[in-house]
Amino acid sequence: MTGPAAAHPRLSLNQATIKYESLESTLRLAVDAGIASVGLWREPIAEAGLALAVRLVEDSGLRVSSLCRGGFFTAAEGEERRAAIDANARAVDEAAAIGAPALVLVVGGLPPHSRDLAGARERVRDAIGELAGRADAAGVVLAIEPLHPMYASDRAVISTLAQAIDIAEQFPASAVGVVVDTFHLWWDPELLPQIRRAGAGRRIASYQVCDWATPLPEDVLLARHYPGDGVIDFAPITAAVTAAGYTGDVEVEIFNQGIWDSPAAEVVARTVESFGEAVGIHL
Amino acid sequence: MTGPAAAHPRLSLNQATIKYESLESTLRLAVDAGIASVGLWREPIAEAGLALAVRLVEDSGLRVSSLCRGGFFTAAEGEERRAAIDANARAVDEAAAIGAPALVLVVGGLPPHSRDLAGARERVRDAIGELAGRADAAGVVLAIEPLHPMYASDRAVISTLAQAIDIAEQFPASAVGVVVDTFHLWWDPELLPQIRRAGAGRRIASYQVCDWATPLPEDVLLARHYPGDGVIDFAPITAAVTAAGYTGDVEVEIFNQGIWDSPAAEVVARTVESFGEAVGIHL
Repeated sequence: MTGPAAAHPRLSLNQATIKYESLESTLRLAVDAGIASVGLWREPIAEAGLALAVRLVEDSGLRVSSLCRGGFFTAAEGEERRAAIDANARAVDEAAAIGAPALVLVVGGLPPHSRDLAGARERVRDAIGELAGRADAAGVVLAIEPLHPMYASDRAVISTLAQAIDIAEQFPASAVGVVVDTFHLWWDPELLPQIRRAGAGRRIASYQVCDWATPLPEDVLLARHYPGDGVIDFAPITAAVTAAGYTGDVEVEIFNQGIWDSPAAEVVARTVESFGEAVGIHL
Repeated sequence: MTGPAAAHPRLSLNQATIKYESLESTLRLAVDAGIASVGLWREPIAEAGLALAVRLVEDSGLRVSSLCRGGFFTAAEGEERRAAIDANARAVDEAAAIGAPALVLVVGGLPPHSRDLAGARERVRDAIGELAGRADAAGVVLAIEPLHPMYASDRAVISTLAQAIDIAEQFPASAVGVVVDTFHLWWDPELLPQIRRAGAGRRIASYQVCDWATPLPEDVLLARHYPGDGVIDFAPITAAVTAAGYTGDVEVEIFNQGIWDSPAAEVVARTVESFGEAVGIHL
């Protein structure tokens, strides 16, 4: 009799993959599946309350690979921008409390009615500058996540790994790093050299995997798939991340309505299996 | 009484903007609107028959800014690839016959069941290598069009201007150039320096404009808008293209179901007006 696949020891289940589960349920599902690490989100932590969330995580024995997410700080100077930076400061503290080594930053798109992409990018750099000291002191790396260029106008004006590293390098590696996410970056002809560059500067704060397939769904935010179900070749990317010295957990983070609508335990089992076959063998 | 806006002398109406019109109707609509140039597509030319199409274009007095399109040659060696290269050779001859200085190449995506992005990109380079001599002899530039990365898997494995120039530079500038299309490239942090690089090598074979807006429609191929209706800042891009020495026509090419479903004369009038306001003032 063949049992379920054993979870790879570096697999981290990002909570967004089973979006409708509570923190407590997420932790239990991970433990039951033999997964050793989770990527957490702020909203379910807030639902549980931070103090309880911290205890639940400690009791679970799981590692926390990252906290999602900060960012969204491209607004021009003013009340909205100050509120965003304050919220990010609180997120840094939360990441430290929950034991997450990295706070993932989705930096934000163009402000309403703005076409000033260069200005928005400068404001991202400046916001990170305001937060870097606090992050460093808290032992949390601000992990800049370049998003696919199809989100450049409404989610993230940072679209390439090179851009993210350009910003990160202006700060200590203990304070600011980058996320390598296969879904967002697989198409980039500069991806492998930029992974090498990020590794040389000890800037890889998180490696996230999921797959790309077409046609895209109506809501392009939900276009992600299990590793192996799309066109991404995980072998060279994973080899590059490994050669770049990254030894941390590897998150599976999938936004997909069909997956969200499936029973969570099945999704976790499929995550374990697909990660092992498409990514784990290259680690 | 104020009449309709006068068409900018460098505006070219790409036929795809009024997709359902015949070649004859397209030419008449352009002439009636005071437009001096058109970008043509192979299918309506084939419907008219090449000999008649050539005569219609000559009689119209319009310039032809480009012929769309060749490409789709990422298949592995074999019958399909040979057929694609033969079709591209015929497209070169057709461009020469119709008076188009450039044949626009949408290079093709990953072949079915393939994850070999690097291999597909090499086959693009090799296919262009097979066609460059014929293009040069015919006085037609093979214009490599980098497409937005959201089309990397199914339409074009060339996603950035840098990649397109990297290939073009392996051949004479009289044979191979690049297309700068705002919709595909606006997000690229390397866009302005790469436009300069393309200009220095006399590689800009076509400048196409339309706008980007979110949310994207269900079919992301139809996500384009009139210049000025989205988030693209046409001023710096157009200034860079001009500073790079490009003096050719500037095409408005919009794929948008709502625009296709509007009366063609209205679409042409809106094209004249929006181009003048958003792009023409920067030329």
